[in-house]
Amino acid sequence: MRKISNKLNVQLIAELLLALGIDHIVLSPGSRNGALTMQFANDKRFKTYSVIDERSAGFVALGMAQQIQKPVVVCCTSGSATANYYPAITEAFFQNIPIIVLSADRPENLVDNFDGQTIRQQNLFEKHSVHNVQLSESEETDDLTRNMLLTKYALMDCINKSAPIHINMPFSEPLYEFVTTPAIEIDNLTVDEKEYQEFDVIDFMKRWNSSTRKMVLVGLHYPNEEFNQFISKLAEDDSVVILTEVTSNIHHPRFFNKIDQVIFPYSEEELESLKPEILLTIGQNVVSKKIKKFLRDHQPTQHWHLDEYWQPDTFQVLTDKIETKPEIFLEQFLPFVNPKESDYYTKWNTIREANHIKHKEYVNMIPFSDLKVFNSIIKNYPDNWQIQYGNSTVIRYALLFDHTVKNPVFCNRGTSGIDGSTSTAIGACIASKQDTLVVTGDISFLYDSNALWNVNMPKNFRIILINNGGGNIFKFIPGPSDTDVVEEYFVTQHHHTAEHLAKMFDFEYQVVSNLSDLEDSYSHFYAESDRPKILEIDTRNAANDSILRSYFSSLK
Amino acid sequence: MRKISNKLNVQLIAELLLALGIDHIVLSPGSRNGALTMQFANDKRFKTYSVIDERSAGFVALGMAQQIQKPVVVCCTSGSATANYYPAITEAFFQNIPIIVLSADRPENLVDNFDGQTIRQQNLFEKHSVHNVQLSESEETDDLTRNMLLTKYALMDCINKSAPIHINMPFSEPLYEFVTTPAIEIDNLTVDEKEYQEFDVIDFMKRWNSSTRKMVLVGLHYPNEEFNQFISKLAEDDSVVILTEVTSNIHHPRFFNKIDQVIFPYSEEELESLKPEILLTIGQNVVSKKIKKFLRDHQPTQHWHLDEYWQPDTFQVLTDKIETKPEIFLEQFLPFVNPKESDYYTKWNTIREANHIKHKEYVNMIPFSDLKVFNSIIKNYPDNWQIQYGNSTVIRYALLFDHTVKNPVFCNRGTSGIDGSTSTAIGACIASKQDTLVVTGDISFLYDSNALWNVNMPKNFRIILINNGGGNIFKFIPGPSDTDVVEEYFVTQHHHTAEHLAKMFDFEYQVVSNLSDLEDSYSHFYAESDRPKILEIDTRNAANDSILRSYFSSLK
Repeated sequence: MRKISNKLNVQLIAELLLALGIDHIVLSPGSRNGALTMQFANDKRFKTYSVIDERSAGFVALGMAQQIQKPVVVCCTSGSATANYYPAITEAFFQNIPIIVLSADRPENLVDNFDGQTIRQQNLFEKHSVHNVQLSESEETDDLTRNMLLTKYALMDCINKSAPIHINMPFSEPLYEFVTTPAIEIDNLTVDEKEYQEFDVIDFMKRWNSSTRKMVLVGLHYPNEEFNQFISKLAEDDSVVILTEVTSNIHHPRFFNKIDQVIFPYSEEELESLKPEILLTIGQNVVSKKIKKFLRDHQPTQHWHLDEYWQPDTFQVLTDKIETKPEIFLEQFLPFVNPKESDYYTKWNTIREANHIKHKEYVNMIPFSDLKVFNSIIKNYPDNWQIQYGNSTVIRYALLFDHTVKNPVFCNRGTSGIDGSTSTAIGACIASKQDTLVVTGDISFLYDSNALWNVNMPKNFRIILINNGGGNIFKFIPGPSDTDVVEEYFVTQHHHTAEHLAKMFDFEYQVVSNLSDLEDSYSHFYAESDRPKILEIDTRNAANDSILRSYFSSLK
Repeated sequence: MRKISNKLNVQLIAELLLALGIDHIVLSPGSRNGALTMQFANDKRFKTYSVIDERSAGFVALGMAQQIQKPVVVCCTSGSATANYYPAITEAFFQNIPIIVLSADRPENLVDNFDGQTIRQQNLFEKHSVHNVQLSESEETDDLTRNMLLTKYALMDCINKSAPIHINMPFSEPLYEFVTTPAIEIDNLTVDEKEYQEFDVIDFMKRWNSSTRKMVLVGLHYPNEEFNQFISKLAEDDSVVILTEVTSNIHHPRFFNKIDQVIFPYSEEELESLKPEILLTIGQNVVSKKIKKFLRDHQPTQHWHLDEYWQPDTFQVLTDKIETKPEIFLEQFLPFVNPKESDYYTKWNTIREANHIKHKEYVNMIPFSDLKVFNSIIKNYPDNWQIQYGNSTVIRYALLFDHTVKNPVFCNRGTSGIDGSTSTAIGACIASKQDTLVVTGDISFLYDSNALWNVNMPKNFRIILINNGGGNIFKFIPGPSDTDVVEEYFVTQHHHTAEHLAKMFDFEYQVVSNLSDLEDSYSHFYAESDRPKILEIDTRNAANDSILRSYFSSLK
């Protein structure tokens, strides 16, 4: 016997979600959302996951939606619970991940009247969402119809704009009464085919083909074989330089996949010779600060940005907004592209090859340290493991090393916060079922330690924690390292490890503090197990900051 | 040599804060707020505290401001960091605690342009704050003057309205350049005397003196001897019944300080005879659901609400808003009050006395359980310890027992969230320097476990953790206990304890699971120590829910 909430609006929401193929629900416990919880948890068509801390729940849902490429619902009780979703919602908004916040609320007349657990929930996420609706509690036909339309358009926006939405639902008591026969049924809904902006392919073709120095810079991108092939075709051209990052998830020998190894304080003349005439940026959220500085200081003549959601003027020189799906543009554009004789690729490649050798020499030479550790762990990723990187030192180290197509890579670069990396990775692991590794620093790991408090923790989830005893990024960037208060207020040095948390949350745990132990640990660490595992790499005694600084000097 | 940021706007903010006597700053590490951090941390006139997790930092600041009764600053870097303050800001807003969010931001032209760690920070807390300003980076005289005025008025609103404000400050690099001589000095500022609304004391007096059934209901109130005396005077009148809660922090033998022991499903006739003609509510956020339901179902003829900040119509019958400081009204009102012959007090007191006996008999009789534990711990609070209660089962149990003037009591009832209770208590302990005990349930404790990650943890801080293995409140309230999914999605049963967290964060730790061990533990637990301590009370095997249910039946 299926227990169905007797509240018609609850039935309505559930059926609308299913009609649009939305079935992943992350539930946080509470009374006000009890009817929704009962509805979702008792209906086998939904996959429901309980996560108590809403901050973590938001990021778990984000990791899920990132993997299944469709919206995931987070559902919580009234009051400050909803506010705990805020960090994840900002990340989802700037990373274009579709999250549906379904918050239960008190009846409207109790807001601001000092009822328990009541805040101003309506439009709480207005600044970081694409659609916000306040449903009515009424079950009159007109109101049900209105609720249905409001919800339907909100859900369609969530899908089409691939971004967070917020549905706020007031509930009066009793909250838990149920029936066994549904009163509401909704046929499957199809989302209207999205209409993309038209573009003048001939005009773009003419400009592209007449230039001898073109740069394509690819930011965050979900792994996509078709996209990879399109960009690879563009690469077979000496007038084109293609820069990618580990989060671009595309691979080709001619791609410059380690930007920070190439861009340096060369002479002004050299930098001018490296700058493109046309810059085509695709995707979002480039990590490398060096490329951003380079392109701001040495602006291309034309900057085309190709993305269906955002048209940011990242380098303050945007000339063309191509508001469409990259694959749509590239499919039409590529047949017209003529490779052009040019020394542009060679110029970049000469530096790359020289620096590649210097990189290898330097990394071979250095002692145990964060840089050495990254060299080791990245080389030893098992095939078909998904990699989730934490912010922010971790992703910057990762950019310096080769990754292969066998390891899809993700990182929360929408807002680049240190919050939520572990929770995101757990959500990704649960939804994709793929073996998943999160590589994280100690501050980020501790910040999100409630991620480990998850009853759905997958056995094939792994954490590599690089513990250098504090926020070491503040030792690298110039400034704080010169102040007296750097250790206490910036690095925030600490002596914590993951040992106790591992015991508490039943993770297998191993700690290593030298290279040979690290290399010996991999086979066991990645081996199948009935428990998730943490491998902690203790680099607290290493000269991490000076080794990284010398690395960059050695490449010059 | 004092290092002073060379950014004039940073100097300006620091001097303005000091000019208004604001000197407590909770800093979270980051680069964008580096100039602010350097400025505050290097200036001995400020008391600076480093808290890494901004969610916890927000509540730490709230606990501090609650104790020192003046604004506390929270300061963080750009991006999602700011969003992590959201839960604490909602609580501060509804509890009228003055918090200044001082967020560093990227320059305005980089917002929405995919620069790192950039969200839409401007007006982020608009719905839950009383003043929001966006400062300019410019150091032109006109802009400095404008920034000074904007900030000054925001700070004065924070003080006068005793509520959160948000100051958002964009910063361009370089962030850390300093000078050694300040360029900006500001004389002490005085906040304009607040003007309260006038009221017609004669009119109130006439109505009060002509009624034979008056109820005063006091909600959350900071301990205040003058206020206690005023209300005590009102109590010496047989036509007046004064209901208080543990969070009211006022004491007199005639106060009804355990509302939930008196209000019950009597017959409609009895309830009608208990209802007041005039209801005077003072202060905010009454915990007891029973009194709210009683007063909604049996509405008084007149409802006067006396508060300087909020005039909520909690019982949907508000007739008079007295918008002034309670002490101001009472001082003028009391000389006119004539005690009136009435059986109103006696009617209430007869029930109270009967139920007091039943309460004692029942509590003596029951075995080890949550209710028994509360009876024991509350009786054994040492003098002059401050008590901070967690939400939400904990505070409801606490309402059933006598507290004395020797233990000031606090609880986050602004939004009544389970988030942040421990962090709030730690902030309160740091700022007040008073011996402080937080009593918390397991879900609330685990939710806020990052509270323990605090380098300023005071040695005289204590945690009593009542671990019943899940969110037991869902076993009491009707509804979820009847559903199949109650354990998984509502109670969210778990097997975690504080043992590992205690080791990790260097707390002394003891666990007890029966009454005699509990009673033996107090003298050591409250004794001075060089470490903070956790006392975990394991009631997982007790019949907590049925014992509480029978308690209420036994009182009928």
